[in-house]
This record gives sequence, structure tokens and C-alpha cells, in this order.
Amino acid sequence: MIRFLTAGESHGKALTTIIEGFPSNLKITKGYIDAQLKRRQMGYGRGGRMKIETDTAEILSGIRYGKTMGSPISLLIRNRDWENWIHLMDAEQRKKGSVKITVPRPGHADLTGVSKYNLYDIRNSIERSSARETAARVAAGSVAMRLLEEFNIHIGSYVESIGGIFPTQNFVDKIYNNKIGNGFNASELSVKSDRSSLRVLDKNQEEKIIKKIKTAKKTGNTLGGTFFVVASGIPLGLGSFMHYDRKLDADIASAIMSINAVKGVEIGQGFQNAMEFGSKAHDEIIMSGENISRKTNRAGGLEGSISTGLPIVVRGAMKPIATLMRPIKSVDLKKMKGVEARRERSDFVAVPACAVIGESMLAWVLANHLIIKFGGDSIEEMKDNFNSYNKKLPGRIRKNFRK
Amino acid sequence: MIRFLTAGESHGKALTTIIEGFPSNLKITKGYIDAQLKRRQMGYGRGGRMKIETDTAEILSGIRYGKTMGSPISLLIRNRDWENWIHLMDAEQRKKGSVKITVPRPGHADLTGVSKYNLYDIRNSIERSSARETAARVAAGSVAMRLLEEFNIHIGSYVESIGGIFPTQNFVDKIYNNKIGNGFNASELSVKSDRSSLRVLDKNQEEKIIKKIKTAKKTGNTLGGTFFVVASGIPLGLGSFMHYDRKLDADIASAIMSINAVKGVEIGQGFQNAMEFGSKAHDEIIMSGENISRKTNRAGGLEGSISTGLPIVVRGAMKPIATLMRPIKSVDLKKMKGVEARRERSDFVAVPACAVIGESMLAWVLANHLIIKFGGDSIEEMKDNFNSYNKKLPGRIRKNFRK
Amino acid sequence: MIRFLTAGESHGKALTTIIEGFPSNLKITKGYIDAQLKRRQMGYGRGGRMKIETDTAEILSGIRYGKTMGSPISLLIRNRDWENWIHLMDAEQRKKGSVKITVPRPGHADLTGVSKYNLYDIRNSIERSSARETAARVAAGSVAMRLLEEFNIHIGSYVESIGGIFPTQNFVDKIYNNKIGNGFNASELSVKSDRSSLRVLDKNQEEKIIKKIKTAKKTGNTLGGTFFVVASGIPLGLGSFMHYDRKLDADIASAIMSINAVKGVEIGQGFQNAMEFGSKAHDEIIMSGENISRKTNRAGGLEGSISTGLPIVVRGAMKPIATLMRPIKSVDLKKMKGVEARRERSDFVAVPACAVIGESMLAWVLANHLIIKFGGDSIEEMKDNFNSYNKKLPGRIRKNFRK
Amino acid sequence: MIRFLTAGESHGKALTTIIEGFPSNLKITKGYIDAQLKRRQMGYGRGGRMKIETDTAEILSGIRYGKTMGSPISLLIRNRDWENWIHLMDAEQRKKGSVKITVPRPGHADLTGVSKYNLYDIRNSIERSSARETAARVAAGSVAMRLLEEFNIHIGSYVESIGGIFPTQNFVDKIYNNKIGNGFNASELSVKSDRSSLRVLDKNQEEKIIKKIKTAKKTGNTLGGTFFVVASGIPLGLGSFMHYDRKLDADIASAIMSINAVKGVEIGQGFQNAMEFGSKAHDEIIMSGENISRKTNRAGGLEGSISTGLPIVVRGAMKPIATLMRPIKSVDLKKMKGVEARRERSDFVAVPACAVIGESMLAWVLANHLIIKFGGDSIEEMKDNFNSYNKKLPGRIRKNFRK
Repeated sequence: MIRFLTAGESHGKALTTIIEGFPSNLKITKGYIDAQLKRRQMGYGRGGRMKIETDTAEILSGIRYGKTMGSPISLLIRNRDWENWIHLMDAEQRKKGSVKITVPRPGHADLTGVSKYNLYDIRNSIERSSARETAARVAAGSVAMRLLEEFNIHIGSYVESIGGIFPTQNFVDKIYNNKIGNGFNASELSVKSDRSSLRVLDKNQEEKIIKKIKTAKKTGNTLGGTFFVVASGIPLGLGSFMHYDRKLDADIASAIMSINAVKGVEIGQGFQNAMEFGSKAHDEIIMSGENISRKTNRAGGLEGSISTGLPIVVRGAMKPIATLMRPIKSVDLKKMKGVEARRERSDFVAVPACAVIGESMLAWVLANHLIIKFGGDSIEEMKDNFNSYNKKLPGRIRKNFRK
Repeated sequence: MIRFLTAGESHGKALTTIIEGFPSNLKITKGYIDAQLKRRQMGYGRGGRMKIETDTAEILSGIRYGKTMGSPISLLIRNRDWENWIHLMDAEQRKKGSVKITVPRPGHADLTGVSKYNLYDIRNSIERSSARETAARVAAGSVAMRLLEEFNIHIGSYVESIGGIFPTQNFVDKIYNNKIGNGFNASELSVKSDRSSLRVLDKNQEEKIIKKIKTAKKTGNTLGGTFFVVASGIPLGLGSFMHYDRKLDADIASAIMSINAVKGVEIGQGFQNAMEFGSKAHDEIIMSGENISRKTNRAGGLEGSISTGLPIVVRGAMKPIATLMRPIKSVDLKKMKGVEARRERSDFVAVPACAVIGESMLAWVLANHLIIKFGGDSIEEMKDNFNSYNKKLPGRIRKNFRK
Repeated sequence: MIRFLTAGESHGKALTTIIEGFPSNLKITKGYIDAQLKRRQMGYGRGGRMKIETDTAEILSGIRYGKTMGSPISLLIRNRDWENWIHLMDAEQRKKGSVKITVPRPGHADLTGVSKYNLYDIRNSIERSSARETAARVAAGSVAMRLLEEFNIHIGSYVESIGGIFPTQNFVDKIYNNKIGNGFNASELSVKSDRSSLRVLDKNQEEKIIKKIKTAKKTGNTLGGTFFVVASGIPLGLGSFMHYDRKLDADIASAIMSINAVKGVEIGQGFQNAMEFGSKAHDEIIMSGENISRKTNRAGGLEGSISTGLPIVVRGAMKPIATLMRPIKSVDLKKMKGVEARRERSDFVAVPACAVIGESMLAWVLANHLIIKFGGDSIEEMKDNFNSYNKKLPGRIRKNFRK
Repeated sequence: MIRFLTAGESHGKALTTIIEGFPSNLKITKGYIDAQLKRRQMGYGRGGRMKIETDTAEILSGIRYGKTMGSPISLLIRNRDWENWIHLMDAEQRKKGSVKITVPRPGHADLTGVSKYNLYDIRNSIERSSARETAARVAAGSVAMRLLEEFNIHIGSYVESIGGIFPTQNFVDKIYNNKIGNGFNASELSVKSDRSSLRVLDKNQEEKIIKKIKTAKKTGNTLGGTFFVVASGIPLGLGSFMHYDRKLDADIASAIMSINAVKGVEIGQGFQNAMEFGSKAHDEIIMSGENISRKTNRAGGLEGSISTGLPIVVRGAMKPIATLMRPIKSVDLKKMKGVEARRERSDFVAVPACAVIGESMLAWVLANHLIIKFGGDSIEEMKDNFNSYNKKLPGRIRKNFRK
């Protein structure tokens, strides 16, 4: 089992994460982590903040001479904007001039946060509910991703739609039809999508979306969208149906839904399959030479909550950014009467970033299940176990059933 | 924090569950639990098994004189079919005549299960991956539901679609538009849907679906569908954005996705909102007399992963039943060559049951968050805390922001 | 990670446990479990209850044809005395004639239980706080013990002292001095101690203790004592210092202290070493032929919270039984005035049983750490990983340090 | 439930901790945390390191304007010695000149660490197994301690013995005899013991111990000892016997045993009571005016694993420091032959610090149980629940038993 905690306010001193339970001797560099952090910050339609911050992780512990030590890894991401916020976010002292925020924004945690935590200033709620926290998650996820790479497991993502504009052809259909070939490496998906300012794979679609975002900006509006996260190279056997809280699909659902503003998640052709006949929904089992194979992968790489060995496909739905520049109704908690909601520096659309965070969360879940299944305290021991299992698997099935 | 474990094979002696962490002095009867178990077994399109089993829970511990004792509650649900399966599922002895199952069914955990667990008989995998296990979950969920009732929190469900056939009007639209009135009790939804053999709310739709199921039966096919689970009476303040694994929506996603055959989940207008402008997606905050209120509830009762006090709406997608009576390709693991998949007694459609299980899982998650927020070891202490919080909340907001 | 929950009241229908997370294909029989249950019930000085109950486990799930299936194992231990208690412990109905218990016994959970849980009858507290619950723990522990045996890890125990009467020579001194030889099998300790009515290893000591117990009985008094639990065959490398909650010694301390009436625990020469110079406390590292070895094992098999490969030695202290037959002061909660504490059928001394429970708890902790380190979903996969690690370990140390 | 993770190597850049789950609006300052950090560093017999480091916590998140925000609290403690260690502990680059450590010290995690984690340099194991990590625990514990103070729960400690030298009178005897009065505040114990260079309460004893430490220093030896941690103001009702892993004493045992070098723990007169008759071991229940009271508190504040409301007394045993300056046998892993163990800058005795860490760990466990029982997301809500329970408790007992 691996664990991580994150800490940090949006305009506080720094974000931190402590990552615990990784094997020793995993090679990892600051550059690797920073590359993931950078990917989270890209995308057309982001607000001013992304220009201020260029996230970079300071490694405080857990890594020596380029390798994990087996000890907790502590990463620190400074908020460059902190200098301008000291008096507003100081831990110890209240300088004069701090102004309370009293008008909650619909769609944000403003009203629920101050209510639940008995807060006297919406600022106290905004700061942690902000998606800035996800930078720490991406830092944690990058360590998980690095681990997976050692086992030839790769993760990629792309944006499927923004504001309801979908691509002419959807790449995942190839996966559902199991037409991607054995050598498929999901990180190539990200190589391609990272080239697009919206992380989409379709040039036409990109243009249409940019137009829509421009309209949104002009009218002070915002947009959401949908995205895919895909993992390749998964061994058969992660997750379990033996207990409801050991299911890989349940863990993935939780991880994706935990991303700020994500309100829907499906695995494989989840919602589509619910409308089909069984004969059109399941993935027939066939022999492909000596090996057992599948005609399709509509299930998105999971059967009975266990990985099948085919690519895992997860789709998430992100709601539009909750901070609008146009009037939207709210209530001033000081005066207890209707007003327009407060505006605050914000993105117009952040689906590209959301997909990157989705990669991190999926990487984390898979790394956790990998460690649970294969054990091992060093990367070498873990690989021994991984290779032994995979090598013996076909023979064991044969032997067990011949008996 | 509350916990439960379930145990039991589909054709084993019995299912059991141990439920741990509930407060003392909660009134509950065997009749109450059995009523929920019965609801899980209903529905047009079920297979022969449901006629054999009439699930009923034996209370082995944790309840005395009609009230919880604060100790773990142990419930036992016997498999009436056990007598016919003793020699096949015996714990100790192998009688002659047991035949191995060697052909996995696509869509089931058959192939993944035998691979991961190094099994010599697909039977060993089928038995636990079967949805029969959900009877134990409904038993556990019924205790959670009983607890929620004490706080006027109610849960209901209905089937939205089967085989792609949707209702003319979808009840949840009223909730999204916040047109259901303050007195709305979500359990009334179940009262209505339980009257339908498919747990739908639209008579026309029911007829169309029945026709489609008949077609499916005739052609040896199966169907899936979508369902809604709704909770009313939720206090403002369950869940949290303070850490990614304290989010109420993430917990709900995990719980619903953990139900056998569920492959998609959304909260409120999750996938729909991803296509809208922000101005059409968020729920404006308004004054309604003295109280803060909302124009809409598109978010489905959660903002910033905290309950808003409005009804919680969850939608799940269930894939078609994986056991088909018509030919579907598979491989005989003994001979390692292509064959038709094995047929086994099964349902044709089980979405109505799935929605009932969804109620149980949602009830569990909400009860857990209720206990985390309000603490207390007896139902009386818990109510003191609950009432105190709710009573003081409006005044606290006023006082905090006037300062 | 493995988990278990237990349920059941002392005079309820039955005790149950659900054990979750064990690998498939582990051989285990009802007879094996029952043998452990029987060992818990033995011992001179037990009360009448032990004559009524002959505990035996009914396997409800998780085991087929003598092997674990990988699914949760559910075990049921009926209370034979139940027939006489139905009206007193009924889940549903209150027959006339039930008399409340209103006088708490000092040393028991009577007063704390009714206070915390807002109970109206001390019976509701007694029933779960009773050590009868440990029967379910021994059932769970027996499965863990069976797993360990597959890896040549064995557990044994003996009673060190009762009522302050210690043996002339203490067996564990041999272990501390590392004079037990490589072939030492800790279960042999239990073979020997089980032959004694008090589970002591010294005949003289046994006689003296029996005399003291007779005196105690005559005067309505009770006794406690100390016991050792020892594990042999442990691989080097269970537990970790990498995080405070991954430490094997901390887990052992928690497990032993969780046994009813245990109030002290030490590992190796814990309290003794605290009085020594460092040079007399630590275990020098030496070469023994080709292998690294130790002159002593005062640490009790753990260094830096990781197992060293030498036997693990744990000592527990059990307070005297809390139910006395002689007058002891208490308060009648109905009348709120001083009275003599209630007497109830009870043991006079139960240290022998406590040691057996200690074996179960230690077995559980070790099995959990074994599964965490070696992973694997079947016993075969787990063994592959275990053997690979142990085989490669000496060579890896050599190679790493030669570089 | 509250959680914390710590990270950091002994000679790395910094130690960090993330503390998660505390209520909002708890007042806390950097000064408060630093005061606890300083207490950990004091004590006669410490090595050179304590002169280099003056630990101080930088608050990175979770606290604004002197109050907790409800969000994770991140604390950073820089290692001042880092400048001298950069090339030895660098995350990224290996400068020439780094020398491997190849000789493990007995009593340390050196040998177990490199074996388990497949390390190529004992340095990688030393760094995290070092007790330097406990600085982060004290930082975390100080937040817990601050929370407890709000509920008039206080914690203190003193050293009972070093090198086998005990005081003439042991303060805890007064607690066991319940002769400390209602107004007892356990933090006063620390006020007194902090004045002693060894944190003992007996001047004579102090002198004798100093002599012994001088002898130890001269001969290159080290010492261990025993200590008491005491908590006052505990409400009746923390912890539970309802499940073995909810027991307060088991959690305390784990927390204390998790402290580096602690190898024994007892609660109340644990090992002493194991030698007594029941009539001399339990705490009689008496009326004291209107209130239920106890004649003694031999149980150390816990009955049935639930707090009784009397002071909690915990005793720990710390083994001597494992780094000796005199010859002790070890093996050079490079040459695989016997050598003298490596010496490294170290303390001679650290029991005073250990007791301070014990306070932190006990504070953490109690804060966790307080939050579990009383719930609440702000300090105000938590207090409402706490006060309501305590106020109603006597009346509820009366009412329940009069029925």
C-alpha cells in the first residue's frame, strides 16, 4: 500500500506532498517531476495565474543520488505569487487591511466550506478548495508514473470535448475495437495531445473549440468538457472482486471523481454499453496463436474489477469553471441579501489540465495495486515478483486445467 | 467511521456480513432488513435463482431487544439452494462427480479470476464474483438506511432506462430545477418505482422495455441500463474538499462503481454540464425569505465535494448481464481452443435490483460521513450533536460575517 | 493487507468472524481451526463456562475442497449456552422477566461501557466486553497460523508466571542468548506447555501456582500473570522503520495489548535492557561460516522495527480476572449508593488462555506483514516471491557492497 | 480521524510533516510548536548534533492568522547541518568523494535496513531509521496537544529511571492511589521535570544518574531507561472494547512502541498487577458525594479499553543508545569478515527526549479518539458536542437505570 497526503493553500507559501511506501532504488529526477508539473499548467484558456507560477518541485527527502531510498518522499512546490499574498495569508499575524470575502460563488465550495467549518471569511474556504492543490497531486502522481514505467506500464490522456464539441473520430474507439496493436504505448497519446493547445487530437475540433472559448471569454462565461485517460501495459490481475473495496474500477472511479470539478466517470463504454444488447457489449475471448486474446475491449480493460491486460480506458466529465466574469446571482453573507457573485482571477477552461491530473490519479491507483499484488521493498525485488508471475501465468493456466 | 465486510459464495452455505461502528440504541428489526432484501430480489427479467431464494437475515449479534448494542452486527443469509450444492461447494471433502468448469464467459470475472488467483476450476472464481454477494451489501446498507431515517435522511431510486429506452419525462429534472419542494422525501421515489416490475416511473416506457426484454429472452440476449439513486434530508456539510480522499462525491463514485456490472457513475448533471456554459451549469445562490437557497440543483446536491443540503442525485450505468444464452465466443482452457461460452442459469436484466443495491451503497456512504461529522456513540448523543449543529448554523454564518 | 472483523456477544447466538485478503489455495481444515479453539479453552482455574462450551467453527465461506478460494472466510462459532439465554439476549422481543444489571464490577468495562454508550442495562456492556470474543480471534488467528506454516514460520507460547510465581529457569533466556539452534521450531514450545494444566514449563512452579490458585478460589479472589509468545522461522525483513505506523514492533504491541486484560507488553528484554549498559544490551554481529549471525538475541528478533530472522519474543502482562467472588466495593446505579459488586460466573485465572490468544494475535500480525512484503494472490505466487527474496538476499548484500 | 505522515532524513535538507483532519479555528502559533521541539532537544548526555540543530518549524500551510483553517497543516523543520552534507545526501548528483558505509552497528537498523531494501550503502538505511525523524512527530504532536488543551486535557512526562537508577518515591504512585486531587494538571509534571537536566523528579536520583552517565561516556558506553507519560482531564468514554482495533490501550501501546528504541510499554500498574491478587489490582467504585468515584487508579485510567476519566498513565522502556564508542563486534559487508562496529556521532543517553516524544505520541492518540467520539469540523462545534456529552452524562446514567 502506498499513501500520500497533500497540503497547501492556493495563495499560501507552498504546496507540499509526502509520498509514502514506494520501493527503494527507483530512479527519479527533479526534471521528471517538473515535466509533469509543467504539463498541468498548459492549455489555451487558462487565466493569469498560470503565467505567474511555473511550478517546480524541490525534493526535500526520500531520494538520494537519483534513486528512491524507500523512505517517504517529500516534495515542495513554492507559490511564486506568495510575496504578494503574505499579509493576506500569514500564519501568525494579522496586518491591517485584510478584507473579508463575504459573497460566495455558485459552483464553488465557498458556501459549503464556510458553513461546515464555521469560517469567518470565505477566503479560508477558497484557498484549499482551489484546484491549485492538484499540483501536489501531479507531483505525487509523477512518482507513481515513474514506477509504472519500470514495468512498461504507460499512461496518456487527451481531451475528448470542450463545450460539447467532439472530434469527428474518437481515438478510444480503436481501443474498444482492439485495433491498436500489441505495441501500443499510451504515453504516445499524450505526446500527440500535448502538441495541441487544448490537448485534443483533432485539428478541426481544436479550431471550433477555440472559437467557442473566445465567445465564452467575451461574454464572461466558462466551459467544461470531457477527457480520456488511458493506461497500457497493465498486467492481467490488478484489482479484485473478492471484496467490494478491492475493486480496481471502484478505486479508479474514486480517484477520478476526486479531481476538482469532475462530476462523472465511466470505464470503457460504460454509459453506451448500458444501452446495448449483451451480445454487443461484451468482449469475446479468442485464441490468437498460442495466446488467449479478445476481439474487442469495450470493457475498457477490466473484467470483474480485475485488469484484463488490455488498455484501461477511463472517461471523466468536468463541469465548467465556477468563477464567471458575467453576473451570476449570489448572496452577501454580511448583509444577507442578494448580490452578484464575486469575480476572482480564474481560468476560462481547464479541461486540458484536468486530463493531466487524471493521468496522475490513474497512475497512483495503478501503482498502488501493483505494489499490493507484487509486494517487494526494492524495485529489484518487485521486478523479480512481477516477471515471475507474468512468465508463469500461461503455463499455470494450462497446467491447472489439464489436471 | 463505520466498516463492513461481507463473505459468502453464490452457491455456498450462506452469505454473512459484519457491520461495525454503529451507535448504540438504534431501533432496528429483522423485518426491516428483510424488506430491503426482498426489494433486491424483485424485477421483471430475473432468472430462476430469484425464485429459489427468498432472502432473509438471521441476526447473530449486535442487536438486543430491538436496539443496537454498539457492538458489531452480524447478519447471516442462508442460501436455500445450498442443499443441492453441498457436494460441489463443500469446505472439506471432494465427493466424486464434481466437474470442473473450463470455459470462461466474456464479461464475467471467469478468465481474470482464474488467472490472478491461480485457480484450477472456474467455479472458484464464479462463486465470489457473482452478484449474489450484493445481498449481504443490502443487509449492511439497510442498517445504514435505518440510521439515516433517524435524522430524516431518506433514500430512493428508480430505473431510468433499460436497453436504451428512456422515459418521456425524467423525474430527476425536477430535482435539478429545484422544483420538488422542501418536504421531498426520496423514499417516496422507491414507493412509486417498487410498484413497477422494472422500477421505472413511466408506464409507457415500462411496456416498451418489457417488449425489448421479451425479444432479448427469445434471442438468448441480455440487457443493461441506467438508474438514479436519490437522497433527501441531507444536512449541509457532509464530506470535505480538505483532502482528496475525504470528498463525498469520490466516496459515492467508488461505492456505486463497486456494484457488480456498474461501469459509469455521475453526480447531478455530470456529463451534461460538461457540455454547457458555466452560466447554465451552476446553481445560483438566492435568498428565500430568511434563508439562503438555490435556484437550481444541477450539481446534484454537492458543491466542492460537500453536501449542500439539497437532494443528492447519483446516476449509474449497468452493463448487460454477462451470461448469454446465445452463442458467444470463448476458449476452453483445458483444450486451449475456441468454443462457445458456457451458459449458466442467469438473469436477463437486473437493473431494478442494481438500483436497490445502489440505495444501499449510497446509504452506507452517507451514514459513514454522518458518523464522521457528528460523532457520538449512542443514537441520542449523535442526535444531540446533529441538532445542535443544524440549529446553530444559520446564526453562526450571520455572526461570523457581521464581525 | 489482510483484515478481520469479529462479532458476537458472550451469551448471544454465536460468534462470527470474517477474514479477508488471504491468498487462494492455502490448505486448511475445520479440524485445524477447532484444535486452536480447544487450546484456548483449557487451563486450570477456568470457570464453569468452559465446561459448557466446546467451541467449534462452522466454515460458511471462503474454503472449498480443503483450500482457500481467495474469497473472504466466514467462520461461525455457536454458543451452546444460547438456549438458556434466548429470552435475555433476544434480538427482537422482550419477554417478561429480564432483570437489569445495575451494579458495575470494578476492573471490567461495566461502568465505562454504560456511560459511553448510554446503556440502560449493564448486560449490554458486559456481553461484548467479555473475553468470549477472543474465541473469534483465535479462529481468525488459526488461518494466519496456517499460512505461516507454509513458510516454515511457527508460533508457540508458555505462561511465565501466575500470581508472581516465576520459573527457576526461563526458557526465553536461551533465545536471548541465541542458544537454541537453527532448527528451533517455536510451536514445540506449545507442545510442551500444552501438557501443563497451566501452560508453564516448570513442574515445581506449576505446583506452587496451583496452591496459590486454590487459596484464591477459597477466598473468592483471582489471579493474573505473564506469558511469552515466540515466533520462529521469520525471514529477515518484515516490518519497517520507514514510517512510524509500519513498524513491526508497534503492530505487535497493539495486537497483544488489544487482548482483554493485557496491560503490559515488551519485546525481547525490553524493560531489562532499559537498565543495562549499551554494551550489555545489543546483539553483536558476527560471521558464522559464510553467514552473518548474532551472538545474542536480546532484542527479541527485531532491529529498527524490522525482523532480524532470529526468533521474535513477546511478553505480555495480564491483570487478575475482574470478577471476584469476595466483597469488593461498587455502586448501584439505580439507587446511586455504595454496595458490593455483583458476582457472575467467571474464571479464577485465565493466563493460559491469554497466551494462546497471544499466539493468534502475533500470527495475525506476522501474516499481515508477510503478505505486505511478498504480495501474491495464490499461495504458489506468494511462495515464489518468498523463496526468490530469501535465495537472492545473501548474494545481493555481497554484490551491493562490493561495488 | 486524524492522520499525519512524516518525511525527512537525518542529514537531509529538512524534515516535514503533513497533519490532516484537525478542526478549523484552533488557535496555534509557531512559538507553541517550537517550544515542544526545543523540549525534545534538551537533556544531559546528548551528543554533538543537538548543539548544531535548534529545531524550529516553518508553517507552510493550514494556519492563517493564528488559527487552523481545517486544511492540512504542513510543517517544515530544516536541518541546519545540511550545508555540510549536501554532497553526501544530494537528491540528484553524486559528487566524487562519497564513501559508502559498510559496517552495520548492532542494535541499529543498519543490517536489517540494507537487507530488506536492497541498499548499496548503509547510509541509505541510517538516515531514515535515525531518531531525528521524531522531531517531525513532536511537531505533529504539538498540534494534537494544542487541541487537547482546548478541552482541558493536559499531558506531562518524567523520566523514571536511567541505567537502572530509580527514584526513592515514584510520583505515579500518587496517581495509582488516586491521591492527586481533582485539579491535577499533568502538564505540571513536565514543568517540574523540564527543570532537571535528566527530566527526573528526584534530585538525589539525578546526581546518581549523572555519575553513571559520566562513567558510560568515559568507557564509550551508553544507557537507556524508563519514563512515564501522564494525561489528565480525559473525559470518560474515549476508546472502545467493541472491536479489538478500537481499543484505546492498544492504540497507546502502538504509539509508544513506535518511538525509536522503545521496547516495552505498560498502562497503569500493568506488570505489577499481573503479580497481585484481584482484590489488590482493581479500582473499587465508590460514591463521592453525588458523584461516582474510585478509591484507586491502578488501571492507569482505562477500564475495558475505555478511559475512566482518571489520569492515564503510560510507562515506556527505552533500550540504550545503539551507537557505542567502545569496541563492539560487527561485520564488514564489503569484506564479509568480522570487524569492530563503526562509531558515529551520537547521544549517550536520550531518555529525557524519549519521554517528550512519548507525550507527543500520547497526545496524538488522544486527539484522534477525541475527534472520533465528538466529531465536529470546527473547534466550536467540537466543544458543543464535548460539553453536551459531559453535561448530560450523570443525568443519563441516573435516568437509564431508574427506568
